[in-house]
Amino acid sequence: MNLKQMVGEKAAEYVKDGMIVGLGTGSTAAYMVEAIGKRVQNGLNIVGVTTSDRTARQAEDLGIPLKSVDEVDMIDLTIDGADEISADFQGIKGGGAAHLFEKIVADASKEVIWIVDDSKMVEKLGAFPLPIEVIPYGSMQLFRIFEAKGYQPAFRMTEKNEKLVTDAGHLVIDLHMKEIEDPHALAAWLDGLTGVVEHGLFLDRVNTIIVGSASGTQIIEARPSI
Amino acid sequence: MNLKQMVGEKAAEYVKDGMIVGLGTGSTAAYMVEAIGKRVQNGLNIVGVTTSDRTARQAEDLGIPLKSVDEVDMIDLTIDGADEISADFQGIKGGGAAHLFEKIVADASKEVIWIVDDSKMVEKLGAFPLPIEVIPYGSMQLFRIFEAKGYQPAFRMTEKNEKLVTDAGHLVIDLHMKEIEDPHALAAWLDGLTGVVEHGLFLDRVNTIIVGSASGTQIIEARPSI
Repeated sequence: MNLKQMVGEKAAEYVKDGMIVGLGTGSTAAYMVEAIGKRVQNGLNIVGVTTSDRTARQAEDLGIPLKSVDEVDMIDLTIDGADEISADFQGIKGGGAAHLFEKIVADASKEVIWIVDDSKMVEKLGAFPLPIEVIPYGSMQLFRIFEAKGYQPAFRMTEKNEKLVTDAGHLVIDLHMKEIEDPHALAAWLDGLTGVVEHGLFLDRVNTIIVGSASGTQIIEARPSI
Repeated sequence: MNLKQMVGEKAAEYVKDGMIVGLGTGSTAAYMVEAIGKRVQNGLNIVGVTTSDRTARQAEDLGIPLKSVDEVDMIDLTIDGADEISADFQGIKGGGAAHLFEKIVADASKEVIWIVDDSKMVEKLGAFPLPIEVIPYGSMQLFRIFEAKGYQPAFRMTEKNEKLVTDAGHLVIDLHMKEIEDPHALAAWLDGLTGVVEHGLFLDRVNTIIVGSASGTQIIEARPSI
């Protein structure tokens, strides 16, 4: 069994009958959605809240009942992948360009589980390019600001070599920072930039991390759930 | 002559040949665009950068050459209206739901002039509802957060009683706060909320304010231009 499948199936065990469950996006999350779908087909009664058009299609195909994040008061549990997790459990997400909706769903959740293979666990964030979702109008102005800072920005491109457009109609600029010294300071600066819709820094947001490695799954309790 | 027309025409005098000029949105700004259009028809050579579809149509009709904010390095001067200006020259904008593009253009400008009639000058901000541009997905979650804070949120509606959609495809929630004690703290909090694209607080951004009153125009130098 591959590691992504292993942690995806492990995480699906955390879903209890009656829960409202946030369903993440990406190759690891897809295994989790698949596993939850099987449990639903066997009688599990849940409502899913999706984080991308892709995940919504997969969940529909599996027969998972869905609601919009706006139709529920609170999400009980959100399970999602992550692109990089630091030693102090901060994360970078957005490799799949879904980090805006993923963060909206995470912020509406009582508890968040991230599922990763052990290659995603790092000492400090930044080797993975940091995705910034931006308003198209003015995006070149932001690009130049990032460039002047030495962050080596690059617009996310599609296979057809066009600028990728997110589910929400924005563009993505990836920052190649190598190492992020102070993620909280960087997040506050990015939050204050006009035209930045959302960045891929997920800080103080995950409660439990399920890490898959050749020797099995490890459960890390990162912080108490609310 | 009405006050809006008076300050609009006064501001147009600040435009010099060869400038790249940010063109604001709203009833007062429309007089400024009109006056600049007349000067262009009389030989003034400028390039305009617009802040809304509305202003773009008006400027095109007047024959003002236009570029996108992304096609210019820097804007020399942006002239725009404001919905409320405090005694320390902070502003609320967004009554016309154009504050996202207005802020993008303002941030790319060497100098910003606001043109208002004297009814917009207040001691403290907050009597004018504060517009928050938000991602539709998750907007009810934000609405509830604002409600819990006592900010009396209301979705901006169209004449057909549908939720207004901005030029960028987002919704607007107006906050009725009556008085904003600390605009910088509020701005930082709003910047950090997932799903908030941009708020209507324009802080430390205006250089010159042209105020129209029954006794004439007053020029206020708010802060040095960059």
